[in-house]
Amino acid sequence: MPSDIEIAQHAKMRRITDVALDKLGVADEYLDPYGHYMAKISLDYIDSLADRPDGKLILVTAISPTPAGEGKTTTTVGLGDALNRIGKKASICLREPSLGPVFGMKGGAAGGGYSQVVPMEDINLHFTGDFSAIALANNLLAALIDNHIHHGNELGFDLRRIAWKRVVDMNDRALRQIVVGLGGVANGFPREDGFDIVVASEVMAIFCLATSISDLKNRLAKIVVGYTRDQKPIHAGDLNGHGAMAVLLKNALKPNLVQTLENNPAFIHGGPFANIAHGCNSVLATKTALKLSDYVVTEAGFGADLGAEKFVDIKCRKSGLRPQAAVIVATIRALKYHGGADLKELNTENLDALSKGVANLERHVNNIRNHYGLPCVVAINHFTFDTIAELDLLQKKMAHHEAPIVVCRHWAEGGKGAEELAHTVVDIIDKTPSDFRFVYEDDAPLWDKVTAIATKLYGASEVTADSKIRGQIKKLQESGYGHYPICVAKTQYSFSTDPKLRGAPSHHEINIREVRLAAGAEFIVVICGDMMTMPGLPKVPSANAIDLDENGKIVGLF
Amino acid sequence: MPSDIEIAQHAKMRRITDVALDKLGVADEYLDPYGHYMAKISLDYIDSLADRPDGKLILVTAISPTPAGEGKTTTTVGLGDALNRIGKKASICLREPSLGPVFGMKGGAAGGGYSQVVPMEDINLHFTGDFSAIALANNLLAALIDNHIHHGNELGFDLRRIAWKRVVDMNDRALRQIVVGLGGVANGFPREDGFDIVVASEVMAIFCLATSISDLKNRLAKIVVGYTRDQKPIHAGDLNGHGAMAVLLKNALKPNLVQTLENNPAFIHGGPFANIAHGCNSVLATKTALKLSDYVVTEAGFGADLGAEKFVDIKCRKSGLRPQAAVIVATIRALKYHGGADLKELNTENLDALSKGVANLERHVNNIRNHYGLPCVVAINHFTFDTIAELDLLQKKMAHHEAPIVVCRHWAEGGKGAEELAHTVVDIIDKTPSDFRFVYEDDAPLWDKVTAIATKLYGASEVTADSKIRGQIKKLQESGYGHYPICVAKTQYSFSTDPKLRGAPSHHEINIREVRLAAGAEFIVVICGDMMTMPGLPKVPSANAIDLDENGKIVGLF
Repeated sequence: MPSDIEIAQHAKMRRITDVALDKLGVADEYLDPYGHYMAKISLDYIDSLADRPDGKLILVTAISPTPAGEGKTTTTVGLGDALNRIGKKASICLREPSLGPVFGMKGGAAGGGYSQVVPMEDINLHFTGDFSAIALANNLLAALIDNHIHHGNELGFDLRRIAWKRVVDMNDRALRQIVVGLGGVANGFPREDGFDIVVASEVMAIFCLATSISDLKNRLAKIVVGYTRDQKPIHAGDLNGHGAMAVLLKNALKPNLVQTLENNPAFIHGGPFANIAHGCNSVLATKTALKLSDYVVTEAGFGADLGAEKFVDIKCRKSGLRPQAAVIVATIRALKYHGGADLKELNTENLDALSKGVANLERHVNNIRNHYGLPCVVAINHFTFDTIAELDLLQKKMAHHEAPIVVCRHWAEGGKGAEELAHTVVDIIDKTPSDFRFVYEDDAPLWDKVTAIATKLYGASEVTADSKIRGQIKKLQESGYGHYPICVAKTQYSFSTDPKLRGAPSHHEINIREVRLAAGAEFIVVICGDMMTMPGLPKVPSANAIDLDENGKIVGLF
Repeated sequence: MPSDIEIAQHAKMRRITDVALDKLGVADEYLDPYGHYMAKISLDYIDSLADRPDGKLILVTAISPTPAGEGKTTTTVGLGDALNRIGKKASICLREPSLGPVFGMKGGAAGGGYSQVVPMEDINLHFTGDFSAIALANNLLAALIDNHIHHGNELGFDLRRIAWKRVVDMNDRALRQIVVGLGGVANGFPREDGFDIVVASEVMAIFCLATSISDLKNRLAKIVVGYTRDQKPIHAGDLNGHGAMAVLLKNALKPNLVQTLENNPAFIHGGPFANIAHGCNSVLATKTALKLSDYVVTEAGFGADLGAEKFVDIKCRKSGLRPQAAVIVATIRALKYHGGADLKELNTENLDALSKGVANLERHVNNIRNHYGLPCVVAINHFTFDTIAELDLLQKKMAHHEAPIVVCRHWAEGGKGAEELAHTVVDIIDKTPSDFRFVYEDDAPLWDKVTAIATKLYGASEVTADSKIRGQIKKLQESGYGHYPICVAKTQYSFSTDPKLRGAPSHHEINIREVRLAAGAEFIVVICGDMMTMPGLPKVPSANAIDLDENGKIVGLF
């Protein structure tokens, strides 16, 4: 089979204006083209759709992943194409890739095999410039903070309590912890600081939750950028920086439209981290897709304990979006890994490990059905090495769950390989009404919200935190942030906070190490375990292989 | 008169595809649109133009400027429109604006009044993403350097001799001098570092001098990123980062096309600093414009001692471009300033100050005519406060120079206000053959090249440097860089290195404070006086006023 980039470079793309018109009924005049195969959709046009009915929303999530990922994006693309193949008017909504993994280890995020979005290279590189706009807005605010302090610090920033970092869209460990403002009076005051990767910026989370330009601007103004010596918060609005930030984000906020290899519409817009942020594409893109399609397939980050929970409790709660069903992506490989098999031996049949590992899938299915109230379909992303015995065992072990299991071959076959999945999803939506619910209510205390997530979804026995953290949570509760939802940052590899605890661990303790207020994004980040907001590059980064060949064609991107 | 942004927002723009077809004969299929009013031109199409004859190239430069600038961009736009008005097929070539001045003090760089390029807001903000691409390519290389050291440092970098900084497109003084790599083993080795503004990146200079994708890649590989303990250079190519950098720059390298308020074609591409780099738009854009137009008007940075010299000795020398004439922009205000008038009193008639200040203009005219060998027209960018007596005095004082003086009103009147200038320029090109020459020859020693610039153009008596700097110059000469041109970084406000020495100072000393090798850009930067590669924001930055109004319209951008 050819490589992803070879498949993508041989794609027969249609002009995006034709895809928009034929598949979505959107005329050229409402599009801002970026080249011939990418476009942004005008916000005025989106406003004009308000009275249309919404299509049906399908969430693609996954079991606790292995480091390679289980194929959520690929499955989202495959399911979208398959729905179109069986005669449904369907779109997909994805997150935008970050350059960190592209040049680091994981590669691009435009799907794989015959289930990709194109133009793959553009999408994985600068795309329509949204991430650069977000980085600039973030860094303008940072420059305004240090500039304000330099010119007199009228707002009274405590230099030890500045809560706003700069960002860059690059894996660059040397920038994690730095000292800025060195070199004397003209360069400001020296202080400790650091850079995050752009997907970790609160601006990214705000961008993805904003429902309009004015909502965006209001949220930007609310960002808490630091504190005074007596610990009073200082906001971006106090620095008068939110207007210029909104100006930088104005064009970026328009949802991006591209196409799948099978020429179906794909909205790719926004890409917040799935740990310290909510890990879903923009509300504006999802809402637009729902106005223009009968079915919309979207993905959330990491596994169903993290990404799907945040999709439900943050994205849907805030925006009013209501999904009709969830697809949970699993691989036989990953289930064997959860059953104790070694990462290097996942291509060997291992019924024993599989049998044990199914517990991970079962926990996620139960969570989706019982705690999110969604009908659920299990999509087995098929690998060549999967054996009949393994697939049979899985069916048998899962038979008592009301969650159909469908083996999918969209990676190798495109939409055709996911037609059974498409039929199953349509069927379950038709027959099983969604009983959508949140994991906790708005008015529950912050501590109880964390406890609800940990005990209901993670199987934990309790939530712990030292008195300093408890004090911070109490203070947030008393300062009027008690109605905010929780955004848990923990490892994606386990239901616990220990990435090595595979399968479906129970009775563990969830320790809160740190709490952060995201006042503009309107959630409280609860950090459990070590969380990296600036990744590093591996010894041999992908960047070494990425190149232009003698014909100017990109090679080595995957 | 309405503000620049009000004029720009009321512009009657044509679709850029129509401008390209009607004015340049470029069909839609060779354009990558960015919205409906900006486009990039395909490099394959540009290659196909190789056999066409070139149009005539006109350089717009200026006297030594006041801090507000004398209106080079505005005059370039006005002259371009005027040439079209008198029936010539003309294009203009400008540099892309940087966000530093936009959010800082100086404002945008898309012209002014009725001589602007549009869409003004997009051009001044993200435009087509070129600066972000350049920043990312620059920062990828930086990350690869620290990553290489972290993972074993096989190339043997001396941590004290790393010669590559990170960049951001923001005025951010806190980043001028920093310490990176703090926080322990996982974050690499602590070392001193700093950020430059993106226009100061060597990648920007390379981007603007590259003649093709393969030339770009070769130049990127040649960048010297640091030295070993025994002072052997280490190149970007040794880190295997140039391929991925070229991939990031692939789309950016296509020249951008927009239009003037009068719907004439404007190429806006690249924007290197005019001090530590050469301050001209890209070679590719200028060459493309010359293939598609009979007249091409372009600008260089700062005054004619800096920008025009680098245009001649770096851009033209390297690319084979040959201008036919120069226009030198002056204002009565600035000439009075050079004659000793106070900045606050430039709107008052002052014949005495004007009479003295003309010396600055005379020196620049002599330089252009005698040392660059170009016919020269003086464009007086008219201000309401200019008096008849002042304009008459100027004419009289300049009468003995063979450089016609034309008063221009393009700021208030658009192209119509520069028609006399257009006629004069066409006339001088027709009647006065250019005797174009360089200020020094390739094979002159580096020290002699600096001396030639300083004594011939600046009126200096000598060039000085302490023995350490002399040693560095000697080493560069011996290491095979002796044939490179010189890029002088000094204040733009004076022929000397003292910004307060106005007019036409003579017999001063030019002291070289620092020497930098730009091996990829292929020039030697000679820094005389204090040079800032990361500006700071003023106490009340423009960012405070830039906002979106209730209709989502940008306000406060100027």
